[in-house]
Amino acid sequence: MNAISADTILEALRWRYATKQFDPTRKIDPATWTALEDSLVLTPSSFGLQPWKFLVVNRPEIREALVAQSWNQRQVIDASHLVIFTVKSPFTSDDVREHTARSAEVRGIDVSELAGMEKMVAGFVEKPPYPLDIKEWCSRQVYLALGSFMTTAALLGIDTCPMEGINPSGYDEVLGLTGTGYFTLAACPAGYRAPTDKYATTPKVRYAKERVLNHID
Amino acid sequence: MNAISADTILEALRWRYATKQFDPTRKIDPATWTALEDSLVLTPSSFGLQPWKFLVVNRPEIREALVAQSWNQRQVIDASHLVIFTVKSPFTSDDVREHTARSAEVRGIDVSELAGMEKMVAGFVEKPPYPLDIKEWCSRQVYLALGSFMTTAALLGIDTCPMEGINPSGYDEVLGLTGTGYFTLAACPAGYRAPTDKYATTPKVRYAKERVLNHID
Repeated sequence: MNAISADTILEALRWRYATKQFDPTRKIDPATWTALEDSLVLTPSSFGLQPWKFLVVNRPEIREALVAQSWNQRQVIDASHLVIFTVKSPFTSDDVREHTARSAEVRGIDVSELAGMEKMVAGFVEKPPYPLDIKEWCSRQVYLALGSFMTTAALLGIDTCPMEGINPSGYDEVLGLTGTGYFTLAACPAGYRAPTDKYATTPKVRYAKERVLNHID
Repeated sequence: MNAISADTILEALRWRYATKQFDPTRKIDPATWTALEDSLVLTPSSFGLQPWKFLVVNRPEIREALVAQSWNQRQVIDASHLVIFTVKSPFTSDDVREHTARSAEVRGIDVSELAGMEKMVAGFVEKPPYPLDIKEWCSRQVYLALGSFMTTAALLGIDTCPMEGINPSGYDEVLGLTGTGYFTLAACPAGYRAPTDKYATTPKVRYAKERVLNHID
């Protein structure tokens, strides 16, 4: 593994910000975009279940229709690319079975070898061992993907704008998700900041480190 | 911004896995660890609210006590470092006010200039515009931090093991969180894989790209 220097990573994380204005003339080149898609596919999740679907919306009419479901935020149409992060719900033992089958396929073993693991995971999603809303638990996994996506994009020099302030059910309708078992959680335009976006130079607001990170020594 | 190559990033994401055995003799050097802490502080969150606290547990007795709350998974003690991801709850207009004060401080403006923004955000957390459990919404934000942390660590050549299969209330007790308004969501040991961890070479199981990522063209 060729580790990247800490300074390079921190520089990228400080450079990133929630981009309010994208340059509509600048497109992410196909190879870089494919890498970002691949990074989404590689996102880790609890038990590896991947309770999600990512939608990359390229069709201009659909993106225009989504603006109206996004408090008219133009990033949805101005950015080079737009990813919608959706969660599978309900998530049941059937989904665990599909994942077990996939695991057996990838690892080249018989599914029966994974029966014990499948039973344990199916038990978890059907009857969690502690109070847990499974739809919310799956939603949290989707945010792992969103968190990793923003960081990966920044390292590639790509701007993003995580958007939760959208109308999720309006998105579901526009995207044809209604009735599919997938629900919109967030949208994330990606591309390049416009030179006129004043937020690029607004100081980043974070609490002091000692306010949000404590050591137990 | 010095962008990193897509190949380098994908190599790191493919290299990472949920490490089951850490090498207890290998420690992350202080400068690299500080960078990882700083990356946590920089994590983006909805409205920038940072509804979290990260605990870095160094004291061996506490880490030993957490093993018992983690289905005896030894990563909690064997890894070089251990981060606990906690969520603030309840999260109210008081928390929004604190964040507004911090924003004014960082940006060098009067808090009154942010009154409109504060009112909007306080309205959101007190009465969300669509059905939303605010504790869960805050929990999702914490997973942005966890997702970004795992990716950042991998890029630094650091192994991690996201752990949700723990007893959250047991963690809260051991860590003295009970009654503080912060609740454990997940733990993440970080360090270096042991050469004997067979999971390092087990094929990574992900769904086919077309199963989890669709284009709307």
